[in-house]
Amino acid sequence: MTRRYAACVEYDGSAFSGWQTQLHDVRTVQETVEAALSRVANQEIAIVTAGRTDTGVHATHQVIHFDTDVERSEFAWCRGTNRFLDQDVRMNWVHESNLEFHARFGALSRSYRFVIYNAPIASALHRHHVTHEFRPLDIERMVRASRCLLGEHDFSAFRAAGCQAHSPVRTVTNLSLNAHGAWIWIDITANAFLQHMVRNIAGSLIEVGYGKRSADWLADVLESRDRKRAGVTAPPHGLYLVGVTYPSQFSLPSEKRSVAYWADN
Amino acid sequence: MTRRYAACVEYDGSAFSGWQTQLHDVRTVQETVEAALSRVANQEIAIVTAGRTDTGVHATHQVIHFDTDVERSEFAWCRGTNRFLDQDVRMNWVHESNLEFHARFGALSRSYRFVIYNAPIASALHRHHVTHEFRPLDIERMVRASRCLLGEHDFSAFRAAGCQAHSPVRTVTNLSLNAHGAWIWIDITANAFLQHMVRNIAGSLIEVGYGKRSADWLADVLESRDRKRAGVTAPPHGLYLVGVTYPSQFSLPSEKRSVAYWADN
Repeated sequence: MTRRYAACVEYDGSAFSGWQTQLHDVRTVQETVEAALSRVANQEIAIVTAGRTDTGVHATHQVIHFDTDVERSEFAWCRGTNRFLDQDVRMNWVHESNLEFHARFGALSRSYRFVIYNAPIASALHRHHVTHEFRPLDIERMVRASRCLLGEHDFSAFRAAGCQAHSPVRTVTNLSLNAHGAWIWIDITANAFLQHMVRNIAGSLIEVGYGKRSADWLADVLESRDRKRAGVTAPPHGLYLVGVTYPSQFSLPSEKRSVAYWADN
Repeated sequence: MTRRYAACVEYDGSAFSGWQTQLHDVRTVQETVEAALSRVANQEIAIVTAGRTDTGVHATHQVIHFDTDVERSEFAWCRGTNRFLDQDVRMNWVHESNLEFHARFGALSRSYRFVIYNAPIASALHRHHVTHEFRPLDIERMVRASRCLLGEHDFSAFRAAGCQAHSPVRTVTNLSLNAHGAWIWIDITANAFLQHMVRNIAGSLIEVGYGKRSADWLADVLESRDRKRAGVTAPPHGLYLVGVTYPSQFSLPSEKRSVAYWADN
């Protein structure tokens, strides 16, 4: 009998060439997780994911599903897989679900967090886990600029050239900024995201923050639907996939919105 | 004219064989910083440090001094050195001082933070920056146990076999524990520390926390002055040097007590 399992994966994207298996020989999260699951199952396991992250992007809460007729307890799947995974990937939980669950098509929303370290000198300790910006950022200004992105819009202006989505329309249900000392984090939730959408929004907000652009500029960019008008794509290593939600019938934890900041005292 | 400069160094200890230059060919923080300073000065620069950290131990606030007759502004020293340093070491500031300042012998106190990630499954993202403990820790119990360490004591029971200090007597002026979600951090300040003292205290407190030892046991260990009675030495990668204080006449920042924890929402 085929069983479908949902599982949650955390990874440090620093040493991966992104999520998706490539034709050429590079290390990807998908391949790494499939190899570990296949060793536990003693048969080939293929996984489906909620969101394919780019090279260097991290996840605290990436959701996948896989089908198998091998019988193992949820605990055995989780523990066994972690035994075969490298330490920069962990499986945080495995839940037996049913064939109605689909990690990609069933997801109602995804949440990302983008972390900026705003200080004159970069951080030695967090160099792989934040985006460093040495110019002082005006957060109030970034907040004002960000409001226009809430709701349903055509996000063509923030879409990568190679993006394969059928439609550029997405619905942003949350976009908030917080700061603590040198740390600034941008939280954004949408039904789904276009390729590079969060990094293009973050890059644009940073340009507003250090004064290159006005707070009103972002609404004009959005309306233009012209990628050439938005800011530069922010680097990937400040970006984390932190949550995916599904219909409540599947009873899955929806997030681990947990990205490091320094506790200054 | 010889000038003496005080400087503050932050580093990720993961890829270093500790602070101190070794006879054999390994990568140390001291050598890395001396090489960068020497390139800026265009002459050999030797540095003196407040605290020689072990392999794998990090620092947010390591203080050093160096002497030179080369004339550069504080800004030029700092910026120039960062240009020649690898990204896992940063110089955060340089202050011109005077010959009365001594990074090692002038230090009034050192502060360390030890970070524990207390969860069933280790963190992929923080594997190099925390010590993972899968057994649930009772923090109240650890706090009760820790109180006996405050004040002036003979810390022989928490001293490494190879420790070269003349006296095992140290004065602990602060020892506090805090927790946030899966994160627990132990803050400890003393006039100075014996080799492995913080890691031996952390290892012992962890044994109290998961119930192997009673809260009273630590006072007996301390009184015994017997290293064989204390807990195991905790791993280095949860440990950070976060502060060094000097007499106020030198007007130096005293800490960057800033160690990552996850902001769960």
